[in-house]
Amino acid sequence: MTARVLAGALPRHAGRAVRIGGWVHRERRLKSVTFLVVRDRSGLAQVVLPPEHTRLPEETVVEVRGLVTASPQAPGGVELTEPEITVLSEPAAAPPFDLHRPTLTASLPTILDHAPVALRHPRLRARFEVAAASVAGFRSVLDRAGFTEIHTPKLVGAATESGANVFAVDYFGRPAYLAQSPQLFKQAMVGVFERVHEVGPVFRAEPHDTARHLAQYTSLDAELGFVGDHHDVMAVLRDVLAGMVAAIAERGADVELPVVPAEIPAIHFADAQALLGHQPGEPDLAPADERQLSDWARRTHGSEFLFVTGYPMAKRPFYTHPDPARPGYSRSFDLLFRGLELVTGGQRLHRHTDYLTALAAHGIDPAPFEGYLAAFAHGMPPHGGFAIGLERWTARLLGLANVREATLFPRDLHRLSP
Amino acid sequence: MTARVLAGALPRHAGRAVRIGGWVHRERRLKSVTFLVVRDRSGLAQVVLPPEHTRLPEETVVEVRGLVTASPQAPGGVELTEPEITVLSEPAAAPPFDLHRPTLTASLPTILDHAPVALRHPRLRARFEVAAASVAGFRSVLDRAGFTEIHTPKLVGAATESGANVFAVDYFGRPAYLAQSPQLFKQAMVGVFERVHEVGPVFRAEPHDTARHLAQYTSLDAELGFVGDHHDVMAVLRDVLAGMVAAIAERGADVELPVVPAEIPAIHFADAQALLGHQPGEPDLAPADERQLSDWARRTHGSEFLFVTGYPMAKRPFYTHPDPARPGYSRSFDLLFRGLELVTGGQRLHRHTDYLTALAAHGIDPAPFEGYLAAFAHGMPPHGGFAIGLERWTARLLGLANVREATLFPRDLHRLSP
Repeated sequence: MTARVLAGALPRHAGRAVRIGGWVHRERRLKSVTFLVVRDRSGLAQVVLPPEHTRLPEETVVEVRGLVTASPQAPGGVELTEPEITVLSEPAAAPPFDLHRPTLTASLPTILDHAPVALRHPRLRARFEVAAASVAGFRSVLDRAGFTEIHTPKLVGAATESGANVFAVDYFGRPAYLAQSPQLFKQAMVGVFERVHEVGPVFRAEPHDTARHLAQYTSLDAELGFVGDHHDVMAVLRDVLAGMVAAIAERGADVELPVVPAEIPAIHFADAQALLGHQPGEPDLAPADERQLSDWARRTHGSEFLFVTGYPMAKRPFYTHPDPARPGYSRSFDLLFRGLELVTGGQRLHRHTDYLTALAAHGIDPAPFEGYLAAFAHGMPPHGGFAIGLERWTARLLGLANVREATLFPRDLHRLSP
Repeated sequence: MTARVLAGALPRHAGRAVRIGGWVHRERRLKSVTFLVVRDRSGLAQVVLPPEHTRLPEETVVEVRGLVTASPQAPGGVELTEPEITVLSEPAAAPPFDLHRPTLTASLPTILDHAPVALRHPRLRARFEVAAASVAGFRSVLDRAGFTEIHTPKLVGAATESGANVFAVDYFGRPAYLAQSPQLFKQAMVGVFERVHEVGPVFRAEPHDTARHLAQYTSLDAELGFVGDHHDVMAVLRDVLAGMVAAIAERGADVELPVVPAEIPAIHFADAQALLGHQPGEPDLAPADERQLSDWARRTHGSEFLFVTGYPMAKRPFYTHPDPARPGYSRSFDLLFRGLELVTGGQRLHRHTDYLTALAAHGIDPAPFEGYLAAFAHGMPPHGGFAIGLERWTARLLGLANVREATLFPRDLHRLSP
């Protein structure tokens, strides 16, 4: 059996008999000829149909044997003539929208309800190729920098971030929870590997229906030991972002890619509040503040990325390292990208006694954390890390209004299928 | 501040003043001199302590500035003299076992209870470097072959594999389940990307306490469209295994690596039963059978890998493609490696009507699967795939008796922490 040739490779087979396979993208009837446009993962192929033929419904999967013939008007300058068509699926049911139009004209709920078919639209599919390239870039930078990939439990005995938005699981008759982050595991593994990364699902029982929250999202996590402070973590994040952008560029995606500056500009939280004209003492930034700060970074630094550093301790989780030089502030950061908070990170506490103090100050019972706290009792270096929300990154990069548009099968308050 | 130098790189800095960082591995007192052995992710460094010094407990994290001095007896031929030692952690609590001995002498439960510290033992840590290399090899082969990495939901509305061993989740007051596999999602995504892979957690509420089952494990999944039958899937799996082995070799791990034959030997299930002297009609292989077949493959084919193909339809899940040439048998396979079933795969059904028939035959209500079944109604190519259990692979490769020894933080019937 001759090997299947992808649509994108047909020009290299001009004059030869080949076999292609793909989906019926559409039938194009012109005055004197009818074309069958076949879609595969590489692009579109044009097949010249004989005058007598059975009409095949769109999305039917076919195999076509034919002769690759030069045709200046065809995509790639070739078309398939003398076709012999075999249907590999059944004749397909009609999709609830036209997949062959330049954009998919359907509401977001309709698209999500029909995700297995809607995602076939080349523009929708391309989003996830960008996401895949981003993840490959993330790993490639960290692997080269001596990070070890880890796989941590998603079933835990206690909530790591806050008790509010956690999913409960029936674990052999006992209560368990879905991990809201790999935070404590990745920290403990700094004690083993010094530098670790993990790409995996995290779970938040978000009771709010917003355009930027999901009940499950993909977290790109990194953590590294022997840092001076959070600036060492920010430097790694900078390189990771540059690698993600480079990987997207390398795969030739049609995206307006940002330039990642050699050093991403940074502003301290207190200075950011002053810049925004807020009263000192406000503990957090509102989404509108983030947009305004991003605008400021673009205007004054020519950067689409901005670090906001030193968030008040009051708003950060118990494992946050304080800034000894500025009481009340932390050695943490958020990264804003095009107006949106995309990454959270910072230096963590690394001394066991500091953890006990911090847990007590937050009113958290240390008992469920005993196993992880052991890592700190037995010697941990100063360390820090960050977590990038993959769907937020992809959505922001591609200018998508809703993070669900960058998720294959989103899960939220209302949606548990498909 | 001078950049930190890793222990393994010290020989390249002979004669220079450097800064290292790591854990106190042990203090070695000889007659005339005392050494501090410092461990970091690259290996061990020997520091010559002054006669007067404070003893530092093992696992304390230190930074040492000193002069790299040639010393033929020292590891790597150099040691650090004139040291200036700074404690970065607190003085560490004593671990419940000696991390500096060649092997960790503690029971498996003790090791697992103290995982954050036990995994620091170089031999234990090395297992997970092998796992990380394996995963990198898996992705590298598939990325080059045009596969797209995907991230699928772990929260689902219905069990995909069987209703028995599924974890229930309280999903905003509604019942949901943890995905037992990405099976139906990866199949649906063949309709979008043709070829997909995913490395992620899967969940099985295994009520049995065995050496080869976990409540959460890491599944290396691949699925591809436009296959002729399961042999095309097996060919991809063969290349993936070769890439995994090559990646481990590349990172220089000290492992007895198997040779992956250009074509892995295969035996049909019915022939395997005959070979074992079983009555025809037995529907499955017992663990002892798998060991015997593996021995046979090694003896007669010189291969540590063996495909058993064509498992009876009765024992395979509803999405399994039957073998039209052999009624009752399927186009599926298991891969045995050194006596253990490591991979399950095969060709899947791809026609919508076949799914409705199969679900009915298995007595499964199709309603919860409606969203996924849409993919098949709208045209799917013949496709298949496989799933490799990462922990099983690592354990078998390293000769570990229990899959928990190849898991950072195992989850099972009795264990939910650390």
